[in-house]
Amino acid sequence: MAGLFITFEGPDGAGKTTVLSAISEQFKQAHRNDIVVTREPGGNQISEAIRDIILNPKNTQMDVRTEALLYAAARRQHIQETIQPALDAGKVVLCDRFVDSSVAYQGAGREIGENAVYEMNQFATNGLTPDLTIYVDVPSEVGLARIKAHRDVVDRLDAETLSFHKRVRAAYLRLAADHPDRIVTVDATQPVATVIDTATTLIINAIKKHQRIGQE
Amino acid sequence: MAGLFITFEGPDGAGKTTVLSAISEQFKQAHRNDIVVTREPGGNQISEAIRDIILNPKNTQMDVRTEALLYAAARRQHIQETIQPALDAGKVVLCDRFVDSSVAYQGAGREIGENAVYEMNQFATNGLTPDLTIYVDVPSEVGLARIKAHRDVVDRLDAETLSFHKRVRAAYLRLAADHPDRIVTVDATQPVATVIDTATTLIINAIKKHQRIGQE
Repeated sequence: MAGLFITFEGPDGAGKTTVLSAISEQFKQAHRNDIVVTREPGGNQISEAIRDIILNPKNTQMDVRTEALLYAAARRQHIQETIQPALDAGKVVLCDRFVDSSVAYQGAGREIGENAVYEMNQFATNGLTPDLTIYVDVPSEVGLARIKAHRDVVDRLDAETLSFHKRVRAAYLRLAADHPDRIVTVDATQPVATVIDTATTLIINAIKKHQRIGQE
Repeated sequence: MAGLFITFEGPDGAGKTTVLSAISEQFKQAHRNDIVVTREPGGNQISEAIRDIILNPKNTQMDVRTEALLYAAARRQHIQETIQPALDAGKVVLCDRFVDSSVAYQGAGREIGENAVYEMNQFATNGLTPDLTIYVDVPSEVGLARIKAHRDVVDRLDAETLSFHKRVRAAYLRLAADHPDRIVTVDATQPVATVIDTATTLIINAIKKHQRIGQE
């Protein structure tokens, strides 16, 4: 049976990475070797080299479309070296950020256009789409306040303006509205333990449903 | 008046680079400072870093779509840093290879699909299309024989099979047939001096027509 592809999405400050770390730890302690947790660039040599170009502070001249193409190139290689082999082996892949992030951040945040970024990413994914996307939602003001409380993790994107963050979140909400069968929204203003429990339940239920379908 | 964008295309062994070098030298000696000759990656820091990833022989795991996305990213940056500023300054830009190369080499040669590669590149160019493309055509057997006679310039693509080269040339011929108003085919089995003269005349005529339209 083919694997199950689950992505985690959300604006900065939603606590997405914290939630996914906790979930990953739970599964690790339960010896769930059928579950692979990954995030771009994914540790492969080519994607890491691409990421180095994106994050190099000397590359001040980088155009927003160049950046979007580089993210897509790193994504493609991550799919080929990590995600697709795991799915082919029947595993459950939990991936921190995927195409929705590019649509929200590059398409809406950087104002390239959500559809243009989506279409270009279809080239990168060759149609690979998550079976389930857990969207951890937080109002932009709350997310930014959380980021500012943890100054050591502020990166280039976090340093953008509130209007940037509002565009990103609005795009996520549009994606969730447009893809109700794929994207489940979890309110991240709840206590983090509640968010973790909700996300874990969503994953467990998706795995059960997937196994049930496989046995029919 | 906006500038004029002219690209040079052709399969390996057509003598495209030799022809463009000779033309470039002619214009240089005529002190034509209105003419800019360039080729990807174009000398900018970001595109050169991207090209290093593509050409790094250690990156044996590179997927063909990753490669196509990286070429497109380098192209985007070359447009933004070199081509578009020159066009905005009203100059004539002669560029060695552009989107047609990706359609022919990645789309047909590497069998990703010509339309998929074309559409993805539209994201990179944001619609920038050459005013004129000089396609230097040569049968695959002749092109390969020429490459083999100059072993020191054989690179990874040249090392591909004859069938690869035939797919590339067939794609170029389809592009020329599909875009008769943009692409002019020059028979590169003619003596190189004839090819240079023909291409020079095409460029001069395009510049004259462009100036005439600008004055109307």
